[in-house]
Amino acid sequence: MEKKIPEKVINRLTLYHYILQDYLNAGEKYISSAQVSSLLNIDDSQVRKDISILDNSGKSRIGYDVEELKTSIEKTLGFSKTKKAFIIGAGNLGMALAKYDNFANYGLNIIALFDNDRAKIGSTVNGRLVLDIKKLANLARKNNVDIAILTVPAKYAQQIANLIVESDIKYIWNFTPTVLCVPQNIQVWNENLMGSLLQFTYNI
Amino acid sequence: MEKKIPEKVINRLTLYHYILQDYLNAGEKYISSAQVSSLLNIDDSQVRKDISILDNSGKSRIGYDVEELKTSIEKTLGFSKTKKAFIIGAGNLGMALAKYDNFANYGLNIIALFDNDRAKIGSTVNGRLVLDIKKLANLARKNNVDIAILTVPAKYAQQIANLIVESDIKYIWNFTPTVLCVPQNIQVWNENLMGSLLQFTYNI
Repeated sequence: MEKKIPEKVINRLTLYHYILQDYLNAGEKYISSAQVSSLLNIDDSQVRKDISILDNSGKSRIGYDVEELKTSIEKTLGFSKTKKAFIIGAGNLGMALAKYDNFANYGLNIIALFDNDRAKIGSTVNGRLVLDIKKLANLARKNNVDIAILTVPAKYAQQIANLIVESDIKYIWNFTPTVLCVPQNIQVWNENLMGSLLQFTYNI
Repeated sequence: MEKKIPEKVINRLTLYHYILQDYLNAGEKYISSAQVSSLLNIDDSQVRKDISILDNSGKSRIGYDVEELKTSIEKTLGFSKTKKAFIIGAGNLGMALAKYDNFANYGLNIIALFDNDRAKIGSTVNGRLVLDIKKLANLARKNNVDIAILTVPAKYAQQIANLIVESDIKYIWNFTPTVLCVPQNIQVWNENLMGSLLQFTYNI
């Protein structure tokens, strides 16, 4: 991607992509911006504006070509670039993410999980091995792993983040409710469920 | 809350709150905006601007009073208003969320989980019962449940969303990678992990 697309637009385009997949599965060939906007309860003009930033010429009088629009979103958002990831923490959340087959369609290749629990090490989750956390640095370097998906309990988050940094992994997708202290060259994406909850429940 | 706070600000305030909790645990009495901004790798001026919207007078020459600032964030974001929730789907993700004790501190009271798997029904997760999905409507009405946290497999998401709507639950926190079709009076918050992933991995 050359130009920077705002985060909110990326988020909406991903939702449009889900809808297009559903339409494809249902054998629909065309979709209108009004159909998309009504499903998401947003403005029709917003949908058209978002779609206008894609390289998409598939608009006809009867709507957008579902297949073409889906492909444009994939190209624009870079689904096809594969990124390698390790899940650190094979608890319920780590297991849930390992079972999330959808990630592969979006370019995320989860190679393995790591834990320090002897009872889990050596088992498999959705075809991926759970490995000893002690092997993290060695395997991260050997496999050029881009992303560590951090799903350990909050109290171990910083300690494991340090280990991730030492393992030369540059991106941390942080699912723990903590703010990690890492060097400037490490990117952290906080999957902030509490923030989400508070945004969502604002009006209850 | 009277005035509408932008989502991004709510998100950042939640992260400041995590940091303040860490400072409190470490026995620190004061914190500067520079300390917050360096942990989050954002601008100092942004932190000061966000804090300025709070009713907080705890700023001194040596920084903000940690305890006071934490309390102001809690008041502003309405942590104290308790909302009742059911988790629908007792798979790994549902179980992970049920085990997330942090939610209670943010005003989310998870009452029970629901599933259709006989092997799970009747068991407990973190002190909460897993109940038969058939009982959803009855129990949701009896308990005035505000929020359904939807963690079923994507292919059942719409069908279960219909059931949630019939059960008079007005808010759906949707963790499935699908766009739900619901009546206008139902609020859906899409916890869009694919969108997150794509925003985060944009530059890899």
